[in-house]
Amino acid sequence: MSDSNETKPTSTTDSVVQTEKKQDTTNKPKTEKTPKDNNNNNANKSSKKSKTKFELKTPKGTQDYNPQQMVIREKVFGIIKSCFNRHGAVTIETPVFELKETLTGKYGEDSKLIYDLVDQGGELSSLRYDLTVPFARYVAMNGIKNMKRYHIARVYRRDNPVMTKGRFREFYQCDFDIAGQYDLMVPDSECLRLMCEILDQVKIGNYEIKLNHRKLLDSIFAICGVPEALFRPICSAVDKLDKEPWDVVRKEMVEQKNLDPSVADKIEPFVKLSGKPFELLAKITESGICAANAQAVQTLQDMKVLFEYLEALGCIDRIKFDLSLARGLDYYTGVIYEAVLTDQDRVGSISAGGRYDGLVGMYGSTNVPAVGFSIGIERIFTILEEEETKKQTKQRQNSTQVFIAQWDKGLIKDRLKLANELWSAGISTEYSYKENPAKGSNQLAYPDDFGIPFVIFLGKNEIETDTVSIKNRITKEQVSVTRSKLIETLKSMIKEFELNPPIIPTTTASTTSTTSTTTTSSN
Amino acid sequence: MSDSNETKPTSTTDSVVQTEKKQDTTNKPKTEKTPKDNNNNNANKSSKKSKTKFELKTPKGTQDYNPQQMVIREKVFGIIKSCFNRHGAVTIETPVFELKETLTGKYGEDSKLIYDLVDQGGELSSLRYDLTVPFARYVAMNGIKNMKRYHIARVYRRDNPVMTKGRFREFYQCDFDIAGQYDLMVPDSECLRLMCEILDQVKIGNYEIKLNHRKLLDSIFAICGVPEALFRPICSAVDKLDKEPWDVVRKEMVEQKNLDPSVADKIEPFVKLSGKPFELLAKITESGICAANAQAVQTLQDMKVLFEYLEALGCIDRIKFDLSLARGLDYYTGVIYEAVLTDQDRVGSISAGGRYDGLVGMYGSTNVPAVGFSIGIERIFTILEEEETKKQTKQRQNSTQVFIAQWDKGLIKDRLKLANELWSAGISTEYSYKENPAKGSNQLAYPDDFGIPFVIFLGKNEIETDTVSIKNRITKEQVSVTRSKLIETLKSMIKEFELNPPIIPTTTASTTSTTSTTTTSSN
Repeated sequence: MSDSNETKPTSTTDSVVQTEKKQDTTNKPKTEKTPKDNNNNNANKSSKKSKTKFELKTPKGTQDYNPQQMVIREKVFGIIKSCFNRHGAVTIETPVFELKETLTGKYGEDSKLIYDLVDQGGELSSLRYDLTVPFARYVAMNGIKNMKRYHIARVYRRDNPVMTKGRFREFYQCDFDIAGQYDLMVPDSECLRLMCEILDQVKIGNYEIKLNHRKLLDSIFAICGVPEALFRPICSAVDKLDKEPWDVVRKEMVEQKNLDPSVADKIEPFVKLSGKPFELLAKITESGICAANAQAVQTLQDMKVLFEYLEALGCIDRIKFDLSLARGLDYYTGVIYEAVLTDQDRVGSISAGGRYDGLVGMYGSTNVPAVGFSIGIERIFTILEEEETKKQTKQRQNSTQVFIAQWDKGLIKDRLKLANELWSAGISTEYSYKENPAKGSNQLAYPDDFGIPFVIFLGKNEIETDTVSIKNRITKEQVSVTRSKLIETLKSMIKEFELNPPIIPTTTASTTSTTSTTTTSSN
Repeated sequence: MSDSNETKPTSTTDSVVQTEKKQDTTNKPKTEKTPKDNNNNNANKSSKKSKTKFELKTPKGTQDYNPQQMVIREKVFGIIKSCFNRHGAVTIETPVFELKETLTGKYGEDSKLIYDLVDQGGELSSLRYDLTVPFARYVAMNGIKNMKRYHIARVYRRDNPVMTKGRFREFYQCDFDIAGQYDLMVPDSECLRLMCEILDQVKIGNYEIKLNHRKLLDSIFAICGVPEALFRPICSAVDKLDKEPWDVVRKEMVEQKNLDPSVADKIEPFVKLSGKPFELLAKITESGICAANAQAVQTLQDMKVLFEYLEALGCIDRIKFDLSLARGLDYYTGVIYEAVLTDQDRVGSISAGGRYDGLVGMYGSTNVPAVGFSIGIERIFTILEEEETKKQTKQRQNSTQVFIAQWDKGLIKDRLKLANELWSAGISTEYSYKENPAKGSNQLAYPDDFGIPFVIFLGKNEIETDTVSIKNRITKEQVSVTRSKLIETLKSMIKEFELNPPIIPTTTASTTSTTSTTTTSSN
């Protein structure tokens, strides 16, 4: 094997988070007393090291995610899960580390990127490198004959992290796979349809899906006269054509992989072929360049079936048939594909996959063919975070509906009793952790920062009259209700607020009619 | 330090999943061709090992979770998250491994249970042991002054796994912590209220929360004449009183920790005190046994404040003031608590926590006091899985709403077109991956197994007449609709089904009135 994997990792997808860039642009969460909450892979420069003898940081290639980032991440995970669910996938969970032997012989050159655990008197284990190999191990171990599953989890690659280029050592993958003995291209086409569905819904701009077939590539190598032993190394070289010009790739083929120069020259016109699926398929078939190779002829017929299915599934327009697509991982045996962003400044792979019919069989006596893909979620997060920053709007970090403020001293227990009532009624509630918070608008700094829509005011007067005042902080509307009607009124106000989030503040008329209300101004 | 942590891990909570017991009782997922999908920590005994030279299994102390288990797990996580959200917590994510130095000196004797990564030419890193230390590191690193956050993630302890007793090496913790300089017992009481809220909502039976205070324990040791250097070792010994009789603990104090026997005897009456919060507090105060120690007097006053707050928060009845509760971890500095199940056969800790005011300060110049707790989710899963098994009902593993069946050959592309339409309309849809699935009821094995409520039948007749037949598999009701009305009709049927899931099958009257319908019997 060559060192071809060095420049382009043979990962299913790259993980991309441009941390360094992000540090200054992230919409930082504001809390009452938190001047900064920056997510930083380096030590906090301002922190004194008198008590710590080491640099305060996360391990190389890893990072924390702050609440603001988590809001975006959970939103995206929610969208992706709903897409997986729309296709009837179940989900499983596997350990974050596997026996080292489970991973051995699956990743070729990239095995050097696997994190190992110290042998502390037991088995040798390694952190998972992807979610595909654990899935194959799971299928084999449980004697499963068919399964459509998704798995969203972090994987680990001891790659040289390049924060600015977004290469991380710990990153999420969202995998969807269909294992089972099925008919030609039926599950394969659904994977591609689902990939489009997800990329459309997460709204990260325009993209195209490059598509090829391992057997077609191998047939072309055979047609050109590549010795069979060089199929995979030459495949790895071809894989670099998205980053390097032909001359560089040819040089690698000839000088590093000892391919006959005349054979290399024969490969060139093939791998430069790309275009609309049916058009290119017709062109290749009509030109007769593959006619002499039975496997090539068969594979082209198979691809025609796939294209017809993709047409029926409404996603053929996203596909670019591209003979230069090779994919790094050795285990692919059929269709291979990779989604790349096509808008300016948004170049790069964000999702990829293919068919791997031999992987499950490596673990047991029974083989189970499979096809699937992985979404490189970190790059999507980066894009969405950048867009969020541009918006200059602040996403809420929590979902608190009510903040209980206190106008007079000595009412802490009254606040707690009220909070207890609200929590028991299922209302998200917070209050100051000061026994006697400063009177006045200082108390509203917290609900301001967290965008809490309703504030309840408690004062001695309210306690005496058995009432509370509720203020809608957006509309400025304020109502006074008797305590016995509080929950009912509040739920109604929250429901109204959530159904019709007000844009322009209004100052008149209560929206609740279930109780007598008094509109007053406060603050 | 003693080896006292050997018998009771100083984990915030134990992880409990009784795998071996579960193997035969789990409600196994059924798929068309999947005879078994058992979750097994041992190799699949029936799998031949001709191709694999190693045992096909997950690493010691870890396990996979199958789709059926995942349904329960995700439901429980959902409940817990909604509780955390009801209290306004934000969430963060930290790496699964930390610099080894970050964990050093935080866990005392238990440091030997930390998983280390191999030094592969960089920093020394270890898998996280809990979520509290990474939180403290995060707070210190980012200069945060206050934060209320939850974190649900897996932690790693190279403990001797006892599958039957539910001790795992990889398990989930659900942590909630409030960091910040606040007033006495205000955040502490909210933690206890939230702990009750979660335990009530996950419905795992009766429980009580044992509660004590580190400063009270230390004061008692001082009153009894324990040398200050022995406070923590003696505390560890006391911590075992929930599992061992006094004689055994006394022996450890005297023989292993060199405590004067007469001092040990003085401790006994104190640590045997437990009871209702206000009652025991009054009893201790009135007896004057702590009157000579200023810190004890102050701590008892502080606890009175806590009890008053817990009363206001409606959860004082769950609390048992218990002077034998010590908690293993060194970093606790104030209130400590541990929830234990009290129903028969459901013994054990399921949640625990306390105040740790010095931990953040170990990483930086500024200290930030904090209090929090951790839910031991694995034991909750075990209980809920056992209950699920008893029910003999099958939880759905996926959320597919419609299955497209095919009555005649050659309609695969028609099925795909239809699926495309349904997915685009947001309807969860599946179909057979066979080009021409066997005619008849065989096609319904899949929707039967997965509990898919609606089946659409496509045949040549339907294609010619531009109609489709929709069958509600529960009510057996079947309607034929023109293709243009399909989405509308289906959405209406799904909505009706979800709002009023039918219990008793009915055979008459369509529920949709937006299109002409024909009720026929099929299958």
